[in-house]
Amino acid sequence: LTAPRILRPKPLTATAFARYGDVIEADDAKRRLINEGRTIRYHDLARIDTSGDEGRVCVSIFRSTPPAYPLTLRVMENHPVASQAHIPLSGRPFLVVVAPRGRFDAGALEAFIAGPSQGVNYHKGVWHHYNLALGGVSDFLVIDREGRGDNLEEVTLDPAHPIVLSPEAV
Amino acid sequence: LTAPRILRPKPLTATAFARYGDVIEADDAKRRLINEGRTIRYHDLARIDTSGDEGRVCVSIFRSTPPAYPLTLRVMENHPVASQAHIPLSGRPFLVVVAPRGRFDAGALEAFIAGPSQGVNYHKGVWHHYNLALGGVSDFLVIDREGRGDNLEEVTLDPAHPIVLSPEAV
Repeated sequence: LTAPRILRPKPLTATAFARYGDVIEADDAKRRLINEGRTIRYHDLARIDTSGDEGRVCVSIFRSTPPAYPLTLRVMENHPVASQAHIPLSGRPFLVVVAPRGRFDAGALEAFIAGPSQGVNYHKGVWHHYNLALGGVSDFLVIDREGRGDNLEEVTLDPAHPIVLSPEAV
Repeated sequence: LTAPRILRPKPLTATAFARYGDVIEADDAKRRLINEGRTIRYHDLARIDTSGDEGRVCVSIFRSTPPAYPLTLRVMENHPVASQAHIPLSGRPFLVVVAPRGRFDAGALEAFIAGPSQGVNYHKGVWHHYNLALGGVSDFLVIDREGRGDNLEEVTLDPAHPIVLSPEAV
């Protein structure tokens, strides 16, 4: 058993997250004024990709209870056929743990802390931890895929080399 | 000029809204337990329909300033090619004004008050008012369509027969 590696979240930014997916947030570069001037539309913030293998878009609500932190990571997953977006509905931040698509590399794991007004859209095949609430039971809108075929791959992390997620930011 | 007709919102329920679209909310009939028991997934809550005429799903954020209420309705719209969903992100209720698809009938207008944990998904062709915030500037996640072709029809209401939306519920 090696000493645990401590994974601390970095602030979530579109640039830092670009290799994994989209950050869904009010981005002034994408603003349009509509509805007689009463609404700012921040337009087209995520690349939703659910049509492969005869899939369709599926909208769900996730109600997540935070795990006990620090959390020893046990399993990571990816969706090989579709993107998956999580947008917070409860005004609380949440944690995001990702690794690049392709062969899973535990050494490449990165953690981010998403603010209460930031969603994420994992692109197809990007390794991520399941939804990690912070600070209380939290609801999220999830935009993913429904359809035939297997859209879930999982890896179990090696318990001999523990990786521990701490909610304290870098 | 006739006396204004006052339109008051009814509470939003899936049953009352069924002819117009979906109510996106945590519905116990659709719950599944996932993520090692830490997440309740309320699964597949809206019929998103954006693929007609080579369209694709588009995710945006609307930041809406409430109009002054009572509000004399001036214009209604529908999207003939796609559905459009609005999910509140700011923990505030909002107002919804709709009329059945097909030839616009001002006499058939109905108003609903959506709670802070209720979204709506207008089905293709359903007449609706643009986003109506209540109680303060509010953000909404909007799931609609991007693509070629014209996806907006508007009607202007007859100013000689005013219809006035009051935020006070029935």
